[in-house]
Amino acid sequence: MPRLYNDKSRIDGRKKCDVVIVGGGISGLYAARKLDASGVDVLVLEAENRVGGRTLTTYLDDGTFIDDGGQYISPGQDRIAELAGELGMTLFPSWEKGLTVYCENGSRTSRGELFLPEESEVQSQVTGTADALYRMAQDVPLDAPWEASKAREWDSLTLHQWLEANVVSPKARSVIADSIEGVFGRGTLHTSLLAALFWIRSGDPLDPYVADNDPDPERRIDGGAQQLSIRMAEELGGRVITEAWVSSIEYDGQGVKVSASGLEVEAKRAIVAMAPAVAGRIRYSPAMPAIRDHLMQRAPMGWLIKVHCVYPERFWADDGLSGTAVSDSGVVRIAADNSPPSGKPGILVGFIEEAEAIGLSLTTRDERRGAVISDLVRYFGDKAANPVLYREKVWGDDEFTRGAEGGYWSPGVWTGYGPALREPVGAVHWAGTETSAVWCGKMEGAILAGERAALEVLSELA
Amino acid sequence: MPRLYNDKSRIDGRKKCDVVIVGGGISGLYAARKLDASGVDVLVLEAENRVGGRTLTTYLDDGTFIDDGGQYISPGQDRIAELAGELGMTLFPSWEKGLTVYCENGSRTSRGELFLPEESEVQSQVTGTADALYRMAQDVPLDAPWEASKAREWDSLTLHQWLEANVVSPKARSVIADSIEGVFGRGTLHTSLLAALFWIRSGDPLDPYVADNDPDPERRIDGGAQQLSIRMAEELGGRVITEAWVSSIEYDGQGVKVSASGLEVEAKRAIVAMAPAVAGRIRYSPAMPAIRDHLMQRAPMGWLIKVHCVYPERFWADDGLSGTAVSDSGVVRIAADNSPPSGKPGILVGFIEEAEAIGLSLTTRDERRGAVISDLVRYFGDKAANPVLYREKVWGDDEFTRGAEGGYWSPGVWTGYGPALREPVGAVHWAGTETSAVWCGKMEGAILAGERAALEVLSELA
Repeated sequence: MPRLYNDKSRIDGRKKCDVVIVGGGISGLYAARKLDASGVDVLVLEAENRVGGRTLTTYLDDGTFIDDGGQYISPGQDRIAELAGELGMTLFPSWEKGLTVYCENGSRTSRGELFLPEESEVQSQVTGTADALYRMAQDVPLDAPWEASKAREWDSLTLHQWLEANVVSPKARSVIADSIEGVFGRGTLHTSLLAALFWIRSGDPLDPYVADNDPDPERRIDGGAQQLSIRMAEELGGRVITEAWVSSIEYDGQGVKVSASGLEVEAKRAIVAMAPAVAGRIRYSPAMPAIRDHLMQRAPMGWLIKVHCVYPERFWADDGLSGTAVSDSGVVRIAADNSPPSGKPGILVGFIEEAEAIGLSLTTRDERRGAVISDLVRYFGDKAANPVLYREKVWGDDEFTRGAEGGYWSPGVWTGYGPALREPVGAVHWAGTETSAVWCGKMEGAILAGERAALEVLSELA
Repeated sequence: MPRLYNDKSRIDGRKKCDVVIVGGGISGLYAARKLDASGVDVLVLEAENRVGGRTLTTYLDDGTFIDDGGQYISPGQDRIAELAGELGMTLFPSWEKGLTVYCENGSRTSRGELFLPEESEVQSQVTGTADALYRMAQDVPLDAPWEASKAREWDSLTLHQWLEANVVSPKARSVIADSIEGVFGRGTLHTSLLAALFWIRSGDPLDPYVADNDPDPERRIDGGAQQLSIRMAEELGGRVITEAWVSSIEYDGQGVKVSASGLEVEAKRAIVAMAPAVAGRIRYSPAMPAIRDHLMQRAPMGWLIKVHCVYPERFWADDGLSGTAVSDSGVVRIAADNSPPSGKPGILVGFIEEAEAIGLSLTTRDERRGAVISDLVRYFGDKAANPVLYREKVWGDDEFTRGAEGGYWSPGVWTGYGPALREPVGAVHWAGTETSAVWCGKMEGAILAGERAALEVLSELA
């Protein structure tokens, strides 16, 4: 069960340390853990009354965990698997066996492949497009996508526009868009082609998702992904302070003074471990240079609503279904089986992406519940109609993360402002998964970014 | 000459009033003036040590004024002309007589029309395109552009992309892009077509700018545009507090508590009179609903650098030139005569827009000075080589406005988030020129937005 660590009351209004870390998500806590292991005196300031950032785990009365936030560990994400092991957590394969349900153009089918359509002509366009994107992605330097030889061209249009111009079949286009949305958790409508190519190179190639044998399963953390942050924070003990909202950071080349809900912290270095959009809301003195500030103005967060319906059993498995659904209508367009390792209770998760979330912005929780359940009945039948529990987490409303999965890059942002993404400004360094060159936007990227920022600071303090 | 009003020291740490206004630019001060005239107890909080927001006037030793920020009053902007009169300011026509210099594809020409090219085939494409845009713009409802019948289609692409697809001649495209950039102060590369059509309807039609008889001249304020704010603040006296940076606003339906640099203000209503990008940096409790917050994440500011070179005389007039230049290369791509009414000294102003400003982000002031002067020599000859004074205002670096001329709307923003632009949230109302339906982004729009917000509040307090 989650519990909180210490609080501000232990600290006497003012504190000195070597490195202050702003943001108690995976990235900030991993940076703190790394620095702490090197004997550096760290302090983590977290605005929320909990740690974990965009990971958040809830527990049902029977102890079943539900991940309201980040949860999947993909093949190749070795660092987060390693961290989970160090923290005493075990991984288990996500429930994926069975047929995927497709609802397209008003008709429902089910078949084995994850995203690949049935029609061979469409199939070949999909795999051809995935191959083409993969090849283009090889020209994107991971640590400086804005230096790709065609960066300017690729950053002048959205992935959506590129698909419209280059893929004949509307269905093939939507399969590629769905798979990118599903795999990377970002809409294709406003994402620049350059950003999409970077994600493909930074994380999964698309190919396995549109192949006829599915990729290795995603794994999940038994007990919930937020436990990673909770356990790191427990190890750090008094060096993590929650409910400490950082309003301003004064800095120069030698150090920082951070103001947080009545607490003043002086340190030699700061690591701001937040998504750029949220990091931009801190007042920096002196003001950040224009290129850094304008980057933070131009990296909005996706507005995900993650919903769960809990049932006594995994009833869809009786019908040979995996619990995965892909749809071109409704509010939930991607659904999956999110049951615990025991398989009981049966839990379906639905992802409501930005376009649909906007449409729901004036609705009540009851109306959203109705819309979600109606979609699940469409995908999985009448047994989906009466969940014993409906849960929702509106990440767009979340005060301190303001969205999930993460920040995205519209056309022009990366070629214009990318070089400011990781560049320290005086004693202020940047972490958070958006700053990671590898598995950017994922929990794995959060770890890699935290580690990089910690190493930057270590080399400066040496 | 500017001077400051009172300061926080007159106030005892805590204050109550009817309406607190956050932001002491034209919009906030006009709202305060309007409310004050109706007997409402107002207080204006301004983060800077001056009022004026994106207007800023500097004075040379001889008293000559230079507007580093907003300055032009276009034909049809009657409210700001009226306000200037009320405040004892006089207007004068901007220096525009003479030939415009064009530098295109490496060659320099000069001719009479402002933007219209010489070649008749290009001319007809330009005027045809301006007409087409004008006609489309008539379908954009000014107070709800997202409800245009083709809103979704027009908001799915940039103006740049529409021009590429609909105008054959690259030169005609660039003329239209230049004129929109020059007239509206926004780049065309990332502006959605819907937003561009709204600007055309909200303010100037483009036609006069590409016609063979030029439009009526822009007017300027003798003594500088910042004087509008300074004089409104002087009239408000102790009800304007500078250096009061608002970090948070607690609100409900009944009132607000505003924290500003050690000052706590309680009021029945707040008017936040700032561009959305900057308004988003305040902490609101409860947190703003997702649609409002995400709007503020998605309306970045342009990053204008405004430069001035001062010369003993208006030497370009001797050559029959107006001082206006339009160029497709260099850092200054639009220049104009910005001399005072007396015509002495001679002053050239240059506008460095976002794309060029980014390129200059790592340069020193001396390097920028060199690049600017080199452009002016190219446009106006060797006499431009030795200004007696070089001035620059990097609006992207300005801590509390973070850009000029204003916020812009990329594809998808207006159809997704537009309805949140003016909608009050509890006791919090929104002003600032970006919220104006008419002359949005201009000083005139700032007045209209301030007036609208004041009327909203008045009707609620009645």
